[in-house]
Amino acid sequence: MFSYQGRLNDRLTSTEPMLAVFAPKATVQRMLDVEAALARALAKAGVIPAEAVAPIEAACDADRIDAQALTEAAASAGNLAIPLVKQLTACVSAQAPDAAKYVHWGATSQDVIDSGLVLQLRDALDGIEAGVDALCAVLARQAAKYRDTPMVGRTWLQQALPITLGLKLAQWLDALGRHRERLAQLRERALALQFGGAAGTLASLGDAAQSVAQALAQALSLPLPSLPWHTQRDRVAEAATVLGLLTGTLGKIARDVSLHMQSEVGELAEPSSAGKGGSSTMPHKRNPVGCAAALTAAARVPGLVATMLAAMVQEHERALGGWQAEWETLPEIARLCAGALANITDIVDGLDVDTARLSANLNLTQGLILGEAVMLALGASIGRLRAHELVEHAAREAVRSGRTLRQVLGENPDVTQVLDEHRLDALLTPANYSGQARAFVDIVLERYRARCP
Amino acid sequence: MFSYQGRLNDRLTSTEPMLAVFAPKATVQRMLDVEAALARALAKAGVIPAEAVAPIEAACDADRIDAQALTEAAASAGNLAIPLVKQLTACVSAQAPDAAKYVHWGATSQDVIDSGLVLQLRDALDGIEAGVDALCAVLARQAAKYRDTPMVGRTWLQQALPITLGLKLAQWLDALGRHRERLAQLRERALALQFGGAAGTLASLGDAAQSVAQALAQALSLPLPSLPWHTQRDRVAEAATVLGLLTGTLGKIARDVSLHMQSEVGELAEPSSAGKGGSSTMPHKRNPVGCAAALTAAARVPGLVATMLAAMVQEHERALGGWQAEWETLPEIARLCAGALANITDIVDGLDVDTARLSANLNLTQGLILGEAVMLALGASIGRLRAHELVEHAAREAVRSGRTLRQVLGENPDVTQVLDEHRLDALLTPANYSGQARAFVDIVLERYRARCP
Amino acid sequence: MFSYQGRLNDRLTSTEPMLAVFAPKATVQRMLDVEAALARALAKAGVIPAEAVAPIEAACDADRIDAQALTEAAASAGNLAIPLVKQLTACVSAQAPDAAKYVHWGATSQDVIDSGLVLQLRDALDGIEAGVDALCAVLARQAAKYRDTPMVGRTWLQQALPITLGLKLAQWLDALGRHRERLAQLRERALALQFGGAAGTLASLGDAAQSVAQALAQALSLPLPSLPWHTQRDRVAEAATVLGLLTGTLGKIARDVSLHMQSEVGELAEPSSAGKGGSSTMPHKRNPVGCAAALTAAARVPGLVATMLAAMVQEHERALGGWQAEWETLPEIARLCAGALANITDIVDGLDVDTARLSANLNLTQGLILGEAVMLALGASIGRLRAHELVEHAAREAVRSGRTLRQVLGENPDVTQVLDEHRLDALLTPANYSGQARAFVDIVLERYRARCP
Amino acid sequence: MFSYQGRLNDRLTSTEPMLAVFAPKATVQRMLDVEAALARALAKAGVIPAEAVAPIEAACDADRIDAQALTEAAASAGNLAIPLVKQLTACVSAQAPDAAKYVHWGATSQDVIDSGLVLQLRDALDGIEAGVDALCAVLARQAAKYRDTPMVGRTWLQQALPITLGLKLAQWLDALGRHRERLAQLRERALALQFGGAAGTLASLGDAAQSVAQALAQALSLPLPSLPWHTQRDRVAEAATVLGLLTGTLGKIARDVSLHMQSEVGELAEPSSAGKGGSSTMPHKRNPVGCAAALTAAARVPGLVATMLAAMVQEHERALGGWQAEWETLPEIARLCAGALANITDIVDGLDVDTARLSANLNLTQGLILGEAVMLALGASIGRLRAHELVEHAAREAVRSGRTLRQVLGENPDVTQVLDEHRLDALLTPANYSGQARAFVDIVLERYRARCP
Repeated sequence: MFSYQGRLNDRLTSTEPMLAVFAPKATVQRMLDVEAALARALAKAGVIPAEAVAPIEAACDADRIDAQALTEAAASAGNLAIPLVKQLTACVSAQAPDAAKYVHWGATSQDVIDSGLVLQLRDALDGIEAGVDALCAVLARQAAKYRDTPMVGRTWLQQALPITLGLKLAQWLDALGRHRERLAQLRERALALQFGGAAGTLASLGDAAQSVAQALAQALSLPLPSLPWHTQRDRVAEAATVLGLLTGTLGKIARDVSLHMQSEVGELAEPSSAGKGGSSTMPHKRNPVGCAAALTAAARVPGLVATMLAAMVQEHERALGGWQAEWETLPEIARLCAGALANITDIVDGLDVDTARLSANLNLTQGLILGEAVMLALGASIGRLRAHELVEHAAREAVRSGRTLRQVLGENPDVTQVLDEHRLDALLTPANYSGQARAFVDIVLERYRARCP
Repeated sequence: MFSYQGRLNDRLTSTEPMLAVFAPKATVQRMLDVEAALARALAKAGVIPAEAVAPIEAACDADRIDAQALTEAAASAGNLAIPLVKQLTACVSAQAPDAAKYVHWGATSQDVIDSGLVLQLRDALDGIEAGVDALCAVLARQAAKYRDTPMVGRTWLQQALPITLGLKLAQWLDALGRHRERLAQLRERALALQFGGAAGTLASLGDAAQSVAQALAQALSLPLPSLPWHTQRDRVAEAATVLGLLTGTLGKIARDVSLHMQSEVGELAEPSSAGKGGSSTMPHKRNPVGCAAALTAAARVPGLVATMLAAMVQEHERALGGWQAEWETLPEIARLCAGALANITDIVDGLDVDTARLSANLNLTQGLILGEAVMLALGASIGRLRAHELVEHAAREAVRSGRTLRQVLGENPDVTQVLDEHRLDALLTPANYSGQARAFVDIVLERYRARCP
Repeated sequence: MFSYQGRLNDRLTSTEPMLAVFAPKATVQRMLDVEAALARALAKAGVIPAEAVAPIEAACDADRIDAQALTEAAASAGNLAIPLVKQLTACVSAQAPDAAKYVHWGATSQDVIDSGLVLQLRDALDGIEAGVDALCAVLARQAAKYRDTPMVGRTWLQQALPITLGLKLAQWLDALGRHRERLAQLRERALALQFGGAAGTLASLGDAAQSVAQALAQALSLPLPSLPWHTQRDRVAEAATVLGLLTGTLGKIARDVSLHMQSEVGELAEPSSAGKGGSSTMPHKRNPVGCAAALTAAARVPGLVATMLAAMVQEHERALGGWQAEWETLPEIARLCAGALANITDIVDGLDVDTARLSANLNLTQGLILGEAVMLALGASIGRLRAHELVEHAAREAVRSGRTLRQVLGENPDVTQVLDEHRLDALLTPANYSGQARAFVDIVLERYRARCP
Repeated sequence: MFSYQGRLNDRLTSTEPMLAVFAPKATVQRMLDVEAALARALAKAGVIPAEAVAPIEAACDADRIDAQALTEAAASAGNLAIPLVKQLTACVSAQAPDAAKYVHWGATSQDVIDSGLVLQLRDALDGIEAGVDALCAVLARQAAKYRDTPMVGRTWLQQALPITLGLKLAQWLDALGRHRERLAQLRERALALQFGGAAGTLASLGDAAQSVAQALAQALSLPLPSLPWHTQRDRVAEAATVLGLLTGTLGKIARDVSLHMQSEVGELAEPSSAGKGGSSTMPHKRNPVGCAAALTAAARVPGLVATMLAAMVQEHERALGGWQAEWETLPEIARLCAGALANITDIVDGLDVDTARLSANLNLTQGLILGEAVMLALGASIGRLRAHELVEHAAREAVRSGRTLRQVLGENPDVTQVLDEHRLDALLTPANYSGQARAFVDIVLERYRARCP
């Protein structure tokens, strides 16, 4: 008989490492890490005897916690830390009765829960930042590779003008560069120790308060903030928004790739090597499973970020509902963001590019998407207004008669007088009308390389 | 060593029965229930041999599913049903190779996932409706009990005029009555079989399609809708909104109770019998743990409902992201709603009413909250304008001098000429100025009893 | 010189009638309508002299209100009703000083604002319900017209199996039918008079309270609820959710139509007669402007609904922030919903169907989307497993060699022994494999006609 | 007769300057500013004749635009820029027919709308940053003033331990300091020119593209980004999130102040000088009108931020719905944030502090909130466990008998042996048990002064 652990869809929308960061046991262990570090800090500051440290540290092991009992007691206590401290104290007491009374000394539940969360958030941001770097690297590689590959640019889901695949990839890379910057700035602000005692004054520690706080911050390798932040939640809420912004960009990439993968478009595809999304009975079908995961994340995260923002309105020195609303919400945002990031990285890394379809689609309108190029060339000789009229008329005629724009224009002496066959052919070659696409790619790549040499 | 199962805060914000409805194993079992019912329906319609049913039914047991393998395979497949059907088929095959080929016949993944969800939703709504009924019953009892108990009415968090505790309870009961109605109407619309096959046409079942569909609906005791609804998500989204509305009302009750519980107000309190929220070192402190749980739900559910609504924009015949965004979201809404409902029911049921504090708070403004009553009585004799001036002046004088409004008015001959001592005392008795409070309670109780005799 | 009134994008996302319902002047007029009706009700109940009514009614004219002064005073007062009553009183006083003192008698600000809102909501729901009826009518007409028109069904944005255009339209009609029902049920609950006085007890009206309330309800043709609902906001929040659900369905339709309109798909298009979305230089381009409006609504409404739900947590007898959060939010939802409804109705009404492209796209996979049909037919003779292998192999071969599935199958004696040329041709005709599509259309149309004969 | 312009509640929830930044006419003018700058840039780069600039610049005046016609035409065109360019061209043409053809040369609608928005956003951020500075200044002044003022610290809305008013103000100041930093970092990223032409390649400008882009950026004093960002919306979405975070903190301050203003608490109040929130008939009542405005903003902004994040999933080179969803949403966020900021600044600046009530409330529990102080002092002599038992017992006895903790402890020889009268009195003086409150205030003020000397 098998056991059911964790949620069924977690692997669909997240990654193993991020699931591990926020796994129930990891959450408990991180709180216990804070308790152990607190014991060390208290001893270092001379508040508790040095002998008390070892038994407390030894007991700070999530495997020794009865998780079932913990979650049930939490319902009455109002948070996990209260019953956790009780279990921990009992555990220490069984080995070293004298040490037991020093467990959790000077701290409040929220100190332990928040500092534990910050430790998890640090792990999460480590993973996300590494993931963003990896995505940037594959985007840079692909943007360079497809720098000169023409493709259709689309506005309103309609074919508009030629662009290049490199330009599209460079756009994504450019956005990721800003996310990298946001993550670095977030880290500076968000990763701060929480330690204030029952009402945020550390009163029960008397004169030793600041030295305990410093030692605790050092023990956990967390910056010591100016003061505790029990009900000032901009730090954790910002983490939510920065991950939310990143997820939005990942969703945009997924939307594009999935549109390019449509049976009728067929220009790009998720890599099939991963064995994802195949169908034995419908071999023509390649389901964009990775895109779906990223789009799922992009659909879910905004509402979760709204919850984090709404939860910032917290009462006095400890909140009633707002703080508690964060507990499942921030981890879920991190999980979804990490899943989207991993999926998009895989997709871009192994992107399947069908150059034949890219080319065929550029010709789908039979030249109409290059009307502007012809109009500008004509306009230089015969005036922009007249050129506009000529091309507009030719375009309508092409649509009406089912011929190419090249054919219609080639039969019009007003045109051929000015533009010879070669010129017309050149003007109606998509790759010749991609403007600054290559230059933009080069700028983005240059800036990326300057940042990540 | 202990094992960690489920999320740590689930018992804080939900109930055991609702956690069970949406537990991972239950989700798998409900999908298997659909598969088993499908086998029966197919056999009944003569599509598959009758002998195939028993082996399939026998294999439709969540204990026989390797959940770990399932969730990992789902990441590649894009949903749970694809690997579940594979495991199920293998399981059947091991016992009855001939029957294995009839597993999942004619159905698509979404048929199984959605119909399984509808079965869970039915269980969830059963629980929620019973919970609403229970809350209505305790509200009705308490509204009757406190029908005549005066208390302060507050607007803008400021004392305004007297009301009664019964009126406050009747307001809540009245809202709950509307939620009861919404739930009943939701049930009619939302609980419908999903069965359409790969593109919603049931094409692979040929002429037997409708009879299989009918037999399947019957087997699952679910209504057969006019047609499949793979990408028409108003049914499930409505479930989210109705639970969201209910959670909003529960949050309102929690907000009120927690404000009444403040140390400085002290009028109402969560029952202490539950052993919730107590503090050994601060016996004056009674943490509103149940209110916090309901307020947490009310803070989290709106963003989740927004996700369900945003996810309605689903592509063609099967969505890319929108459907998947529902999977964790709707269960979370149901869990939070159920938790809030249970907490509020416990709170109202055992509501601790401190009539001394109710009374003391009515006198906090030293009569000012009854200025209107005096003004109206005076106005009948000396004109409303003059009465308004007199009372306004007296109120200011009372605030300035720290005396009661009664004292100031009693010294003013313009007042005492019209209103004698007895009349003034009566006018300045809060219980005498509660207007239609009792009548409103009676109306609400009467309508409640008519509905639930 | 021109004047700027209203917001610039309102006509893009809403309709004239709905903009009129919630125009600033209409909001003021609706509050004044409540004041006028209150005067009549008070006189009818004998609370104020009959002579006071006419001057009050005469002054209840939004044209006589200084809107600029009103909005500025509201910032200090905290709501619009306080300065409005002041202006109204001054206005009455100028004509009939005696009547002025009876203005707003017995009411509180929220009575006037909420009852005014309910009057606007009634107008809004009238418009939305008529709009839904109109959309149902055109959907029914088009579903009947295209009942037998085959098209590609798509899952994961990939071609899957044939469906019919009629089926797609019937799906939308079916969902709209449920929205119609929700709107009717909402109307029963949401459209209720708000009248409770300062703390919801109508205390200042003494024994006349209930008769004034009844007369006021009658005067405004609004049902009198069991009791006031100042901080029980499920009524207005439900209005938000029902419109949110409807907008979600409209967004789904817009998503589909815009995907069908892609240059590379080209199956359906918004009507061009409206002159919308054309481009003079790119005649091949037909921007889905109406779809964009509906998708904009579907993107904006979920967050607004979340606000309405979050705002339900209102304090005591008058809220601090929650009530005020509704003021701009509910009208915005109604405006966006109405705009989406009008756009989708125009689109479905004048839907441009390119049957040639529908047909061409059905053949895009060269028969692969009908592999299942062949497999089932083969399976009846040679067993499902063997049939599956044969078709899967043929499909891969067709993709590999660039031939049609028909060609590959036609060369395989294992197939042709069982299925002759005619049979194979028939099996590979999309229209022959649309399953219950027609039957589903008929069921939906029948139910629609039964509801709207 | 008066005219109705703008929305009725705008002055309640925003400020005049911010309303002006996003007024319809300002929006049009900003787009016209972009068109005028474009003409200059094109002439500078030699793309259009120098003579064309003056007539175009002259016509770029919002007073010359028929706003009514504009908004109606936008509904068909799909955005404001298309009809605006038409009106502008007609306007130029009437004066200088030759110049008319150079209007909008090389640009696309989104270039003009986005760059106009960025100009508005710059104005908005200027205002918000100045507002944050002003709020920081008054917070610093008040934190210094009330550095040593003891008050009750509250957790779970229950009295917990003493803190100081200075600490509370320093907490808010500390959070505002982080918001200041976020705003500065946002400005660096978000304020970038949008200029890419129809598909983001600037193809129609040929070789002059980069020099036109540079000249345009210079003319508008906007940084030139690496490449256009038509569908990479992290810049504007980040603006939404940063304002959202700030609004959350402002909502938290408003929640606290309004709780402190409750009739039963009465410790702090909004300044009454502003004439806000007064009631003539209820002089005891001081409605927290400014808090309500900030809480309204904090209730509305999260849903709007969610919309901005959800809207990031934009298609290809120009979006269908996502971009349009930003248009009303981002300005609304800025308006609400500015209103909240102004209200909170006024409130903190003129904060009415009732030290008598602060003191009285510290004594409300008759010493129980200082039980911990006694316990720690006792524990140093008789052991923590024994001290805990003694104090716990005394606290229960105090509650039971209605006496003060001081009285009960003073009668217990086990206590008085260790702690004499003076010591007991000192331990039960709230100001003596505020821990690091003063130190924290000093740290925050020092860092503030270092930042803003």
